[in-house]
Amino acid sequence: MTLGDPRDVVALKRDGKPIPEAELRAFVMAYGRGEIGDELAAAFLMAAYIRGLSAEETLAMTRAMVDSGRTIQLDGISRPTVDKHSTGGVADGVTLVFAPVAAAMGLAVAKLSGRGLGHTAGTLDKLESIPGLRTDLSPGEMRRQVDEVGCAVVAQTADLVPADGALYALRDVTATVASIPLIASSVMSKKLAVGTDLILLDVKAGSGAFMKTPRDAGELARACTDLAAGWGRRARVAVTDMSQPLGEAVGNALDVAEAVEVLTGGGQGRLLELTLQFAQQAGEALLGLDPGVARSSAEDAISSGRGLESFARMIEAQGGDPRVTEDPWAVLPRARVVVPLVSDRAGAVAAIEAEEIGRASVDLGAGRKRKGDSIDPSTGIVFRARIGDRLEFGDEVGEIHARDEDAARAAARRVLDAITVGQDSVEPPPLVFGWTDSGVPEGVS
Amino acid sequence: MTLGDPRDVVALKRDGKPIPEAELRAFVMAYGRGEIGDELAAAFLMAAYIRGLSAEETLAMTRAMVDSGRTIQLDGISRPTVDKHSTGGVADGVTLVFAPVAAAMGLAVAKLSGRGLGHTAGTLDKLESIPGLRTDLSPGEMRRQVDEVGCAVVAQTADLVPADGALYALRDVTATVASIPLIASSVMSKKLAVGTDLILLDVKAGSGAFMKTPRDAGELARACTDLAAGWGRRARVAVTDMSQPLGEAVGNALDVAEAVEVLTGGGQGRLLELTLQFAQQAGEALLGLDPGVARSSAEDAISSGRGLESFARMIEAQGGDPRVTEDPWAVLPRARVVVPLVSDRAGAVAAIEAEEIGRASVDLGAGRKRKGDSIDPSTGIVFRARIGDRLEFGDEVGEIHARDEDAARAAARRVLDAITVGQDSVEPPPLVFGWTDSGVPEGVS
Repeated sequence: MTLGDPRDVVALKRDGKPIPEAELRAFVMAYGRGEIGDELAAAFLMAAYIRGLSAEETLAMTRAMVDSGRTIQLDGISRPTVDKHSTGGVADGVTLVFAPVAAAMGLAVAKLSGRGLGHTAGTLDKLESIPGLRTDLSPGEMRRQVDEVGCAVVAQTADLVPADGALYALRDVTATVASIPLIASSVMSKKLAVGTDLILLDVKAGSGAFMKTPRDAGELARACTDLAAGWGRRARVAVTDMSQPLGEAVGNALDVAEAVEVLTGGGQGRLLELTLQFAQQAGEALLGLDPGVARSSAEDAISSGRGLESFARMIEAQGGDPRVTEDPWAVLPRARVVVPLVSDRAGAVAAIEAEEIGRASVDLGAGRKRKGDSIDPSTGIVFRARIGDRLEFGDEVGEIHARDEDAARAAARRVLDAITVGQDSVEPPPLVFGWTDSGVPEGVS
Repeated sequence: MTLGDPRDVVALKRDGKPIPEAELRAFVMAYGRGEIGDELAAAFLMAAYIRGLSAEETLAMTRAMVDSGRTIQLDGISRPTVDKHSTGGVADGVTLVFAPVAAAMGLAVAKLSGRGLGHTAGTLDKLESIPGLRTDLSPGEMRRQVDEVGCAVVAQTADLVPADGALYALRDVTATVASIPLIASSVMSKKLAVGTDLILLDVKAGSGAFMKTPRDAGELARACTDLAAGWGRRARVAVTDMSQPLGEAVGNALDVAEAVEVLTGGGQGRLLELTLQFAQQAGEALLGLDPGVARSSAEDAISSGRGLESFARMIEAQGGDPRVTEDPWAVLPRARVVVPLVSDRAGAVAAIEAEEIGRASVDLGAGRKRKGDSIDPSTGIVFRARIGDRLEFGDEVGEIHARDEDAARAAARRVLDAITVGQDSVEPPPLVFGWTDSGVPEGVS
């Protein structure tokens, strides 16, 4: 349809009235083409934030955002395809482990990824800490690699969902970020633009996540599954704990080394467990495996070494040095200064300000405060304390990897201050609060 | 105060929480200085539209808007000073008559005025139809003229309340115009920036006004008196009828001719009556006159010819030809084509779409669709039908003053179609729905 006065569309939402699908679509498409100014779009975002968007409106908006740019079809790939995405947390290295594990299970992981921003790191940045590795694959290169190797992690280009790129930047400057339908639309538009057989989504909840409570995260998870259902796409969505860092590595090279360790069978923690749960879900949904069989298949991908092998093949296919999977620190950049993180308090860990640890890592150079900032892949934090642990004075709870002593000292101070201890014993939080799915019939479509 | 993250101010209003005075002030001042982008200001306006602004917030915002620019003090003028403003209607020529009448009563009218936009005309445009007349007086010239002549109508410059100018333009493009606190703040900021002893405000209600109902107009009137009270300024505010054109002239030169007619004692209609009521209010508030005495004083200003004399002196002081007050059409520009407006319907006039008549006049060249458009001062409409009148086929109800026949025909069609007739007799609407005041003690402050 052609759009009349676009202010009339905004006025409907302003007044709490539903926006018909065709008008919302025309509005978003016109904004994507630059025919509607940022001022009116900002007013729309604020009205949508306050009044909310119905499931139908969220779907119409998401469809328009996807249609504002290029989409990627994955037809002709011999394996079932899966995309896995996290809404962002601290030490959330699941994708790096999941992709090769799923590949070793016979699945194809086609993952378009963004760069880290704020307190959360990006999978692209982590992978690019491997010298030579490139993520700017063309759609054809990505398809070929996914078919042959079983996994690829590729930089999302600006022509994928361009309206989302513009709206996201606008939300950031207009105090309209924390809206569940707007977040769901932004997250899912980038997943729906890529034609995988299954979308796995990890909605994080807690001090290191955007959603601070499992309840809010659950609402976002439902909004995302509603979108997938409205689109006729299969999605399985978990709400998982981010009240503390998930893995131990909060950086970039550090995360690659941790992924290698987990894939070598050296990890027993929450990062491994969550990866196995995602791999199990993919095995159930795409390979028709029973839960127990799917779980065994995922565990076997690690114990057999086939996961690590897939990781090496993916790294090599993308131009990186595959020896990183044998001896990570022979390949990865090391920080100039590495100092132990020594507890200055005693008691049971009651709470961890995970976001603060992420921000301390950003200040070490491992992340970006602003889009376009460069990062130092060698720096970051290793953090091993967990809620429920008992700490003594002098316990080593991690390491700071820094460019100089001053930065290391400052980071250590912030990280230690992010730990709250008490004298009572503390129950660790659950890892997964729950799963939901889009209800679209399973089996390869 | 210095402003922290301005998004936090917007987030308060977004979430329905009050914005502390200092923060709202800092936000508006920063926007006025260009330090806050239009996107964030647009988001603020939408949040304010939906959530509303308290009386305290509206006052803080208005104060900041006034302080964003220059203010005009009128100290040292020997007469009590008064400003009179209308929220805009059709054939609303009160200011042109009021200013010289009040001057003749011993008051000083210092009126900063804007140009016409949309279906409402501006006092500046009307006066400038008098050849040679200038409205770009400096504050010093204005003060001198007000002191000597008793009245001046001067163009409002961009350095008066600049934040309002920017916010008003932004509201227009973001579907946030129709908010009572935002309108009140915009209207009153320009009045409060000029240090008169009394503000008279005419809030129009009806088909030719921005506020379509007396109820909405009453709410705006209260918001305006609240602002004046919060400022410690005396204001008297009327809610008056705009369900039909007030006077007969809908143009520019036509309005000047009508003002001369009324000042000559030739008017008996609603325009004269409303002018007398405003003059009476000014006499009561500023001269301490009893209502009856104030009314007589206003009537006497007309019957004695002293009002007309003041008009001539004002026009002469501003460079115009004062003979316009003796023989208007010897001085004013005349339209090429003047055709009578002949009724094509019979019955009692039940309703008049006054805004449509204003728009027909704009299309004749008498007004602006967009800011900056030029106007043709000679064109316009004379419209004499009133609600309750009985019309017959062929009755002459006015004239169209146009540049050519086609334009005249099109305008005649629109104006006639703006009249609804019925067979039942119809009671004319009241002229004034009510008065309110700011409750600030009277007597020159």
